[in-house]
Amino acid sequence: MSKESFLPATGTRDIEPISAQIRNDVIYKITSGYKKYGFNSIETPSLEKLENLVGKKGGENEKLIFKILKRGDELKEALKNGSADENDIADFGLRYDLTVPLARYYAHYKDKLPKPFKVFQIGNVWRAERPQKSRYRQFTQCDIDIIGDPTANCEIELIYVTCKTLQELKIKNFEVRINDRQILKKISENCGINNDNQYRDFLIALDKLDKKSLDDVIEELRKKSFAEDVLLKIKNTFESLKTGQNNQHENYLKSSDSLKLIIETVKTLLGDVSIRFDPALVRGMDYYTGTIYEVNEINGSISFGGGGRYNNMIGGFSGQDISACGFSLGFERIIDAFFSGSDAQNAGVVKKAALIYSSDKDNYCDIIKLSESFRSKYDVVSIFERQKNMANQLEKLKAVGFTHWGIFKSDNTVIDKLEK
Amino acid sequence: MSKESFLPATGTRDIEPISAQIRNDVIYKITSGYKKYGFNSIETPSLEKLENLVGKKGGENEKLIFKILKRGDELKEALKNGSADENDIADFGLRYDLTVPLARYYAHYKDKLPKPFKVFQIGNVWRAERPQKSRYRQFTQCDIDIIGDPTANCEIELIYVTCKTLQELKIKNFEVRINDRQILKKISENCGINNDNQYRDFLIALDKLDKKSLDDVIEELRKKSFAEDVLLKIKNTFESLKTGQNNQHENYLKSSDSLKLIIETVKTLLGDVSIRFDPALVRGMDYYTGTIYEVNEINGSISFGGGGRYNNMIGGFSGQDISACGFSLGFERIIDAFFSGSDAQNAGVVKKAALIYSSDKDNYCDIIKLSESFRSKYDVVSIFERQKNMANQLEKLKAVGFTHWGIFKSDNTVIDKLEK
Repeated sequence: MSKESFLPATGTRDIEPISAQIRNDVIYKITSGYKKYGFNSIETPSLEKLENLVGKKGGENEKLIFKILKRGDELKEALKNGSADENDIADFGLRYDLTVPLARYYAHYKDKLPKPFKVFQIGNVWRAERPQKSRYRQFTQCDIDIIGDPTANCEIELIYVTCKTLQELKIKNFEVRINDRQILKKISENCGINNDNQYRDFLIALDKLDKKSLDDVIEELRKKSFAEDVLLKIKNTFESLKTGQNNQHENYLKSSDSLKLIIETVKTLLGDVSIRFDPALVRGMDYYTGTIYEVNEINGSISFGGGGRYNNMIGGFSGQDISACGFSLGFERIIDAFFSGSDAQNAGVVKKAALIYSSDKDNYCDIIKLSESFRSKYDVVSIFERQKNMANQLEKLKAVGFTHWGIFKSDNTVIDKLEK
Repeated sequence: MSKESFLPATGTRDIEPISAQIRNDVIYKITSGYKKYGFNSIETPSLEKLENLVGKKGGENEKLIFKILKRGDELKEALKNGSADENDIADFGLRYDLTVPLARYYAHYKDKLPKPFKVFQIGNVWRAERPQKSRYRQFTQCDIDIIGDPTANCEIELIYVTCKTLQELKIKNFEVRINDRQILKKISENCGINNDNQYRDFLIALDKLDKKSLDDVIEELRKKSFAEDVLLKIKNTFESLKTGQNNQHENYLKSSDSLKLIIETVKTLLGDVSIRFDPALVRGMDYYTGTIYEVNEINGSISFGGGGRYNNMIGGFSGQDISACGFSLGFERIIDAFFSGSDAQNAGVVKKAALIYSSDKDNYCDIIKLSESFRSKYDVVSIFERQKNMANQLEKLKAVGFTHWGIFKSDNTVIDKLEK
C-alpha cells in the first residue's frame, strides 16, 4: 500500500497528541463556563435526514453537504433506475452547522423544555469545501443559544457569558463590536436603497469593509449598477459615521430598540471589556433578523466568534414564530490563538513525566507500584522501556509533550533524576 | 412539516440535557484517568477513504459502513455511466470503529512516535445497523492501546489502568476474565479439531457459552458436522475445566507464554479486583492473536469492556509486523449502568439553581450581578423570567436537571428562598 494512502481523507486531518491535549483542555474550559452560567448541554447526531438539511437558510453551506448513500434494497432499487440522481440515492447528510439540528431538536422537544431554553452544543460539523490550506472539511463548532425570549436580556447574557469564558481561557485584548440589522435597514433606506436585491448587495459589499477601503466597496456597488446619488449618500454616511460628524452614531443608535441598553449593561457588567457600536458590521448569514455582534482581537485580525438574533429559523421547522439569539465561538481560531500566544501556550501544558526502566533488571510490577508515588508530583506519569538510542527516545517523548523524565535505578527503589 | 420529520435520522438519537451532562462527566473522568497514566490522546476524522475501511479485518462491521457520495464532476461522471454501482459513486465512509483509523494513523506517523506508543481515542463511530431498541447507528467508543511492545507489560498496564478508571467512576463489583488464543488453540488441538474452518466454528459456538448451556453449544457444533469423538472431548474438557478436575486449569495455563504472569501481577497491583482465567472466553473479533480479556459485573450480565492482543492489524497498513494490545470500554453500557445504579446516578449530578425574576420590576443588570454571588454555593446558576404558571415552569426546569430554585425579591437585593 502506498504511503499516500495512510493520509487522512482529503481535506481532513489527524490531531496529534499535543494538539489533542490542548483541544481537550479548551473544550473542557468552554463547557465548564457555559454550564456554570446555566446553559444546558445537548448532543444531536452527526447525520440528519437530508430533507432536514436543505432549504433551511443554510445559504452556501447547503451546497457543501456530504451526502450519505442509501443502503441495501433501497439503494439497489434507486440504482436500477438508470436516470438515478443524487436525491434518489442519498437519504442522510452530515450536518454543516449546529443551528439546523438545534432547530429540529427544539421543534421535537419544545413542550417539555423550559422557556426560555438556554442551551449549548459543541460538536463537529462537515463541509465539502474545496481542499485548501487551513480550511478543513471537518471542524468543531461551539454554539450557545437562548430560545424563546424576545428581550435584550438574551444578547446581554450571551455576550456576558462569552466574554467571561474567553477570560477564563486567558484570552486578553479583545473587544465586542455590535450592530443591528434594523440600523443597517435604516441606513440603507436613508441612502435611497429601495428594494430587497439592492439591500442584499449592499450588505454583501459592506461586509468586506474590514478588509477593503470604503472606495473599493463603493466601486463594487457601482458595478452592481447602484445609482450615483445612492453611492454618494453611502460614502457620506459611512465617512461621517467613522469620524463621528453630525452626531450620526447617536441618531442611528435610536433606530434599534435595544442596542443602547445592551451596550450600557455590558459596560456595567464587564468594565474591563470594550464594547462598541460598529454600523459597518454585517455578518454574512442570511438568517439574522436583529442584533448582530462579533468579538475580535483589538487592533488584530483574529475573530474569536460572533452571533446575533435570528427570529425565524428555529420556528421554521414547526411553522411557529419563535425568537432566538445565539453566540458561536470560533473554536479552531481560538486553538490557533492558543498556539501562537505565549501565555496561551502554557495553558494546555501539564507536567508530564516519562519514567524509563530496563527490562533486563527491572520487575514491571515493582515499577508500576513505584510510578504511583510520582503521581502526586506530576500530572502525567508514563512508563517506557529503555531503548538502545535513549537520546532519540527522549526526542520522540518530547514530541508528544513529555516535559520531564527519570530513570529507575538498579535497586528498583529510587528515581535517578527528573529533568526538564 | 409533519411531527415525524422532527425526529433524528433513523436509528440515531438526540441526547437530552441530563444525559448529556452525565455523558460529559463520564468522558471527562475516563479521559483524566487515561491521561494521568501517560496515554496520549489523538483524534482522527470521522470519515476515512473507503479503501481504508474495507478489507481491514473489520468482519461483519465492514458491511455496515455508511458510504459518502462523491461530489461535483466526479459524481456526475459516475452517474452518467448507466451501470453505476456503490463503489463508483462513493469515495469516503464513516468509521465503524477506532482501531482501523488508529492503524492508518500509526502507519503515517510511526517514525516520529515514541516506542511503545501509548494512545487513547474517544469518539463516535457509525454502523448502518437495522434499527432496533437500544442499538444505535451512532455511538461512542473509548479505546486505549499500546503499540510496538510485544511483552506482557502491555496487558498488565491496560488492565491496571482500565480497572483504576472504573474505580474512579465509582463502578464496583466487577471482575476481569482473561484467556489466550494460544490456549484456545491448544484445547482445540487436544480435542481433535484439525482445520481452520472447524477451529473458527468452534470459537463462534464457544463464544455463546455465557448465554447457552454446554449441551447447546455441543449441539450447535453437531449441526456443523463435528465428529462425535471430537464433541465428546470438547464436552469432557469444558466440564473438567469448570469443576477443576485433573488440574486442567494449570495444564492449559502453561500453554500461554504470559497468562500466569499477567494474572499474578494484576493480583499484586489490584488486590481489590478479582481476575480469573476463563478458558471459555473467546471474544468475537477475528483479529485477536494472543491474550483476550473482558471486564464484567460479578454475577451480572453487564460487560464494561474488553480487549486483547492483535499483532497483525496495526502493521497491516504498512505491511510490517507490529505488536499491539488494546482495551475498549463500552461507553454506552457504562452510561446505562450509571443511570441504573443508585451510587452512580449521583456521580453526574451537580447543584443546579434556577433564579427567577419578574420582568416588570427587576432590572436585568442588577439580577446578573446578584446571581454571581450564588456561584460559590451552586455549581450552576441560571436566570429565568417568571412565567404565569410557575408550577409548570419549575417542572420543566426539574426535567433539565435543576435541583434548587429561588425568587428575586422586589427590592432586588435578597433571594427569597432556595429549596430542593
